[in-house]
Amino acid sequence: MRPNIYLFGDSITEESFGDGGWGASLSHHFCRTVDVVLRGYSGYNTRWALKVAERIFPPVESGGAPPLAVTVFFGANDACLPDRYSAFQHVPLREYKQNLHSIISFFKKRWPEIVILLITPPPIDEDARLRHPYIENPSGLPERTNEAAGAYAQACISVAKECGCPVVDLWIKMQECPDWKQAYLSDGLHLTQAGNRIVFEEVVKELKEKGISVENLPVDLPHIANIDPQDPLKAFQDC
Amino acid sequence: MRPNIYLFGDSITEESFGDGGWGASLSHHFCRTVDVVLRGYSGYNTRWALKVAERIFPPVESGGAPPLAVTVFFGANDACLPDRYSAFQHVPLREYKQNLHSIISFFKKRWPEIVILLITPPPIDEDARLRHPYIENPSGLPERTNEAAGAYAQACISVAKECGCPVVDLWIKMQECPDWKQAYLSDGLHLTQAGNRIVFEEVVKELKEKGISVENLPVDLPHIANIDPQDPLKAFQDC
Repeated sequence: MRPNIYLFGDSITEESFGDGGWGASLSHHFCRTVDVVLRGYSGYNTRWALKVAERIFPPVESGGAPPLAVTVFFGANDACLPDRYSAFQHVPLREYKQNLHSIISFFKKRWPEIVILLITPPPIDEDARLRHPYIENPSGLPERTNEAAGAYAQACISVAKECGCPVVDLWIKMQECPDWKQAYLSDGLHLTQAGNRIVFEEVVKELKEKGISVENLPVDLPHIANIDPQDPLKAFQDC
Repeated sequence: MRPNIYLFGDSITEESFGDGGWGASLSHHFCRTVDVVLRGYSGYNTRWALKVAERIFPPVESGGAPPLAVTVFFGANDACLPDRYSAFQHVPLREYKQNLHSIISFFKKRWPEIVILLITPPPIDEDARLRHPYIENPSGLPERTNEAAGAYAQACISVAKECGCPVVDLWIKMQECPDWKQAYLSDGLHLTQAGNRIVFEEVVKELKEKGISVENLPVDLPHIANIDPQDPLKAFQDC
């Protein structure tokens, strides 16, 4: 049985199987070795994620194999400003850190060997947020700021360090490109295909550093290159 | 727990989570309702598929929910000509039909309510096969012909009718477009993004006719639109 890698997060995870999406790319990358299981919930913050984690992640896996890894990719909604139109998604920074700690504890208790890979929220293009509001926004002020996203990204990195978890610093990584607003963000928050590509590459890199790579994983059933053209059925004797 | 839809097939299934792939598109389409589980095995024919079906599809699902549907997409390798370089993948037409019957029986016995959606092999562009051989091919003759693929497609449709299963006639559907060779095939056999799009649309259509659609399936956990901004946690009381 193939082990799972779970993708747990908000809309940037839920949308990750769209064209060029980082989830689909992971699934393609790990095909024949791992099932990449999508558990993205648009609009969710860490407070709501904690409420549902028990239900989303059943203790018993099909076939009994524990999952190899989980990506935990929250913060973009927690970082909504408390005095703007998305205030109901806001979670204070201090609680965000506590919640991430609790989510990590939940996974460590459930599956002690699982690799928990945190991903920080992406940077925010505030002008683009004003052009792409979820609802009517007569205030003229964006519901998220890049500064706030940066504070949550920093908190996420702190928690990862405290817990010994790997982390992708998406907030910094994306801003290394001068053209990050156009190149990586489609509406100032969600990711373009190039933005998805960065997440994919960083996740593959971090998983590889933890020993989770296509090279290290058993291939599900004989590869065509290992099937003897003179006696193909020999390859299936043990199946 | 979300139910599964399995994708069982050869390389055209295995590659279906690449950019614009039909598997990734299905996963995106059904997100929050279904887990689309990739079980594609490059180069496999129905003979080999039968050898491994028992191992690939364990009787007990995680959480106990039986899968909603499975796509069975074999024939492109069975239809390799028996006197060309891919002869070891060839399965005679008569056995191909028997094997499809056996695969359907396997799924019906395993999960009596499952929707088994057959997909015929795609048409073959023989000139493109000569330009894109798997191995050195000094014969100057393609290892697959469109006529042979058409015979296997017709056999697949017959089996579907005999068993009362829905079927996507990809061989015919693609050739309705005058430019099918360039539009839908990347190497005379595998699919371009436009070719993947056709498979995706046809699968969604056939599943919908069997009552499997996003509109009919329960959404996993409260949708953001149904979370009360005045009292968000109310939505999670039963989780």
